[in-house]
Formats: sequence, structure tokens, C-alpha cells
Amino acid sequence: MDKKILLTGDRPTGNLHIGHYIGSLHQRVQMQNSGNYEPYILIADVQALTDNADNPEKIRASIIEVCLDYLGVGIDPQISTIGVQSHIYPLTELTTYYLNLVTLARLQRNPTVKAEMKQKKYGANVPVGFLTYPISQAADITAFNADVVPVGEDQLPVIEQTCEIVNAFNRIYGQTLTMPKAILETNKACHRLVGIDGNAKMSKSLGNTINLKDDADTIKQKVMNMYTDPNHIHIEDPGQVEGNTVFAYLDAFATDDQISQLSEYSSLNEMKEHYKHGGLGDVKIKKILNEILQQLLKPIREKRQVFEKDRAHVMQILKQGSEKMLEVASKTLDRVKTSMGINYFTDKTFTDKYSTN
Amino acid sequence: MDKKILLTGDRPTGNLHIGHYIGSLHQRVQMQNSGNYEPYILIADVQALTDNADNPEKIRASIIEVCLDYLGVGIDPQISTIGVQSHIYPLTELTTYYLNLVTLARLQRNPTVKAEMKQKKYGANVPVGFLTYPISQAADITAFNADVVPVGEDQLPVIEQTCEIVNAFNRIYGQTLTMPKAILETNKACHRLVGIDGNAKMSKSLGNTINLKDDADTIKQKVMNMYTDPNHIHIEDPGQVEGNTVFAYLDAFATDDQISQLSEYSSLNEMKEHYKHGGLGDVKIKKILNEILQQLLKPIREKRQVFEKDRAHVMQILKQGSEKMLEVASKTLDRVKTSMGINYFTDKTFTDKYSTN
Repeated sequence: MDKKILLTGDRPTGNLHIGHYIGSLHQRVQMQNSGNYEPYILIADVQALTDNADNPEKIRASIIEVCLDYLGVGIDPQISTIGVQSHIYPLTELTTYYLNLVTLARLQRNPTVKAEMKQKKYGANVPVGFLTYPISQAADITAFNADVVPVGEDQLPVIEQTCEIVNAFNRIYGQTLTMPKAILETNKACHRLVGIDGNAKMSKSLGNTINLKDDADTIKQKVMNMYTDPNHIHIEDPGQVEGNTVFAYLDAFATDDQISQLSEYSSLNEMKEHYKHGGLGDVKIKKILNEILQQLLKPIREKRQVFEKDRAHVMQILKQGSEKMLEVASKTLDRVKTSMGINYFTDKTFTDKYSTN
Repeated sequence: MDKKILLTGDRPTGNLHIGHYIGSLHQRVQMQNSGNYEPYILIADVQALTDNADNPEKIRASIIEVCLDYLGVGIDPQISTIGVQSHIYPLTELTTYYLNLVTLARLQRNPTVKAEMKQKKYGANVPVGFLTYPISQAADITAFNADVVPVGEDQLPVIEQTCEIVNAFNRIYGQTLTMPKAILETNKACHRLVGIDGNAKMSKSLGNTINLKDDADTIKQKVMNMYTDPNHIHIEDPGQVEGNTVFAYLDAFATDDQISQLSEYSSLNEMKEHYKHGGLGDVKIKKILNEILQQLLKPIREKRQVFEKDRAHVMQILKQGSEKMLEVASKTLDRVKTSMGINYFTDKTFTDKYSTN
């Protein structure tokens, strides 16, 4: 069976954290290792610039970091191709042609973009590049002929936009682009991991993340400072599990096997019940979570450190990956321009076809 | 003195006509021949696609035609570089970076785009590519480091948009882009030449043009059918000069010398006075205009025909021009990416600069 082409990626706006891990990286590595996919991973610096145009430093500083995070979690450059968006020019040229196939009204209806614009309080002052990023994602997806694109539920409208562009293009210019399929990232519980401060979203700018590269002490400190139930003051007080960050993380990262190995409880549910009735202290649940996160992150960090010592090698991985992706995307662009009939200098029939009457 | 870099161009959506000639081509050839400029001429097929995405055939069919029109009027490929937009990829990449520097509100305020959108009855259903074409023009202008851009008055807001982008880019990323200057196309009387049917605009879609390639009979026929003054029925009737197409064309194309050679009048004004008072027939004024247009267009058509016989040579001119323009634009793109700091693989300090803390 032919391998399916898989496209994923991240905006390089800071180190990747355990929210990224559980939300997508984990599944990405599993898919890579299944042998059923040919994965392309895009470090989307051009897209990151759409709302960081005045702070390119943030993007620059994250290129190698994000790649190290990938390598740490087990992305294998022998199997997965990792490339940098700004070094794959056909993406911008494809975007240009797709811009003509989408109306402003349609873009403004995109629920993902609408929600993000609201969050950023852009209004009509949205940078045009930001408003149009779903079109540039359509270029990313189609450039590599992606069959599948793993996404969170909130990104589904962006894939829908891509499918519309593929339909429009193929209808107008003839069958050319591959129709992608969204794969929902699996673990619902952890799709949006809350920050360690209980804030709805883990994000670098809020300083409430546990990063994949954090050392053991930092992880422990962050876990011990985690937001729990503010009314759970004494051990014997009944405690809230809902909205309790420690339990949100245990839901995402702990297996019952781990719970029973690390505590007297046979399952996470049993532990939750005890907490709700009172008699289970925050320090204890934090220690259990800390242990689980340490087990998860130690091998990732150690693998990351090996690559970290040879950053020139990491750059080499990125350069070769970008070159490979440039090659694939260039072929798609050639196909696109041939379908559109704007390949004047390579179309041998062009001169004859357009003789003056 | 250094030559100033000049950028001009046209959307390839049909043959060029005498409105193009008097409105811009004539001045373009004069500037070329002055020796003071290094002209780049862009056949803007990508821009033409922004409102013709579903009719690429129209664009394709016009590429060689527009180039033949250029060569006919005296554009000399030894002096002026003629290139095809779709074959100069840095233009789309520059556009992508500039999209981040312009807000949607700013784009929607652009009077040129507003007027065009109204004319095309787009509303919110405007293709995004069309709405953003002033940003892609900024890429065209800056890619070749244009010092001067000759434009009609209605295109001034587009140049203003370019200047804003240049300012924003240089402010955020450091001095990188050349600030262009608009040069107003001179001959006010003929800036918007009316159609032969008296319609406000000469345009291929209205079928009311006199094309540069029209043969002598066609020109004569079009002139003899021209819209004049519908109330000027008998020669002795007083006639209207205002709104009379023949006089609009005479205003644009006739010199008093020509008038006195071709008639008993010593000047166009004298001829107009006679028409107003009555006694001067439409056939006579049309014959004079026909003579003047024939004199103008014959050498253009003949020169055009020489090139027309060797379309492979024309393609060669376009290919070489596009390659030269690709080279220049690539250098600008390199400079832009260096300023933005997204030249990861060529910046030798990059790996050291971003060592993990």
C-alpha cells in the first residue's frame, strides 16, 4: 500500500511545551513510526510573521528551538522531512493564485480566523497577511499533495477552506490538486491543555507552560506551584477536581497503571474520589503528577540535549528538509501553472497557439 | 549621472489600443529614448488573473500580443527590459511579507480599489487577490528598486500605498527598500480617451477601441462610424464639440501643423469654431482624423508586423527579460530576507546567535 502523505507543522513563536506534545506531537510521532505515512513537517515562520511582523526576532530565535523540540520527542529526519516555510518559495506563489479563488466575505466568515481576530482585538485593523493565512495554509497543504492533515477541532474550518480552494481550482483549471482530509487529533481531554496557572490556554506569552526542554528542577517547581482548588486549604477539606489544574494534567498524562505504581490508588478515578471527599492533600497529588511528567520528559530532554550540542547538524537537517520540500512544492507549482496555462516558456505549443489572426 | 530606474507595465487582457498609446506608451518610449532611465516593463499576468481567474485564456492569448504592441510603438528590448510577472517568483514572496504591513481597513480605504470594486459590483464578494493587488504592485515596484513610476492620476493611491509599505518596512526592519516616486502621465486631454462610441472608457470588452495593430481599412471604418453630435444632422447645422468623439480624438492626437496641412484651417481651434457655427460636416472632420491616425499607426503597425513574423524571437525577448528581472528581484528578495533576519541558511552567525540558554 502506498504511504499517505501527511502534513503538519507549527508556528515558531517559542519553545514547544507539553500542551503541544499531548495535543499533536505525540500522535505525530506515532503516525511517523507506523510506517503508513510520508510526513512533511513545516516550521511555519512565514505564517508566524503574519501577526509578528514587528517582532521577527521572536521567530528567528525559535527556528532551531522548535526543530530541537521535534527531534527530542522522536521526530526522525530519516522518515519525516522538516522544512522551513520561508525557504520554500512556491508556497507564496501558490498562495497568490489561490487568493483569486476566495472572496473577502468567505475569509471573514471563517470561524477560526474570526475567533483569533476577536482574541487579538484586531477588528478592521487586522493585518491582511493574518486574515489570509487560511489561504496560505491551503498552499502548504496542497504544495506537498497532502492526503491527511492532523488538526485540532478549532482548525477544522481552515481545512474546509483548503478543500474549497482545491475544488475551485480543479473545477476551473482541471484536476490538479490533491484533496486533503483532516484527521482529528485524538485525545479530547488534552486538546487544549490549561496553563499551570489554571488559565484556559497554555501559552508562552502567559508564562504558564511546561516546556519540553525544561530541566527536572524547573518541572518540579512548576508542578508544585500549580493552580489547584483555592478552597482546598486543609488536607481534610473536600476538594474540587473540575477546574483543578493538577487533575486536568493527570487526565491528560496519567495512566491508571502509573497511578497504581506511584500511589495507593488503583486508578485515577479512585484518587479523584478521595480528593473530592477530603483527606488527600495538594502536595501529594502534585508529587504524583511531577513523577509522571518527569518520566515523560526525561528521555525527551536527554535526546534533545544530544542534538543541542551540534546545532550545525540541526541546521543541516533543516536545510536538507527545506530543499526536499522545495523540490516537491516546485513540482506542484509547475503542475499548477501548466493547468492554468501560464507556463509560457515551457509550453512548446504556446507560440503556435497564439498566432495573430 | 546615474540612470533612474523606471517601472511600468500593463495587464495583458487584450491588445493595446490608441488610448494606451497616448496615455502612457508614447511617454514611455520618450523616456526610454531620453537615455536618462533604465526601464523595466512588466506584463502583469498575475495581476490580470486577480479578476480573471476563471478566464485564464484571455490572459494567455494576450502575452505575445502585448509584447508585439510594445515593440511596435518603439520599446527597444536592448534598452527596456520586458518581463512576465508570473515568471518572477520573488514578486509573490515579497507580496507575502508586505501583506503583514497593511491592514484590511487601509486596503478598503484605497480610492482606486474602491472605485474599481464599485464598477465591478464586487462588494464583499471581491476576490481577495483583487482587493490586495495594490500590495502586489508594491512588490513589483520595490523588487526592481524603481525610482520612478509613471501613472495616471487614478493610480496615485496605489503608489501612495507602496510608499507606506516602503516606510513601514524600512522602519521595522531597517533601511532596505527604495522609495519610488510617481510621475504623472502628461497629456491631460487624453488621459482617459473615450471609446469610438462616445462611451467614457475605451475598453476591449466594450468593443470600442482602435487597436495599435488595426489595419488601415479597419481604422478608417472605425473613424467613419465614430460617435459625433447626434443633433448635427445637416452640414449647415451648428455642431457640438464637447462630447464629440472626433474632436476628443483630435484634441489628443492632432497638432495644429497637421490640421493646417490636411485642411484649410490653420489650427484645431479654428476648425472647432467652424463646426460650432455650422457648415462643417462630420464626414470631413472624420476624414481629417482618419488621416492623422493613419499617419500615427502605419509605422507602428509595420514595425509590429516585422516582429509578428518571428514569434519565437518575441518569446525569446520575453524569456530573457523575465530572467533578467528574476535576477534583479531575487537580489531584492535576498536583501529583504536578510533585513528581516529570515535568511537562516546563509547567515553565518545564525547558529551561534541562537544557542540555547
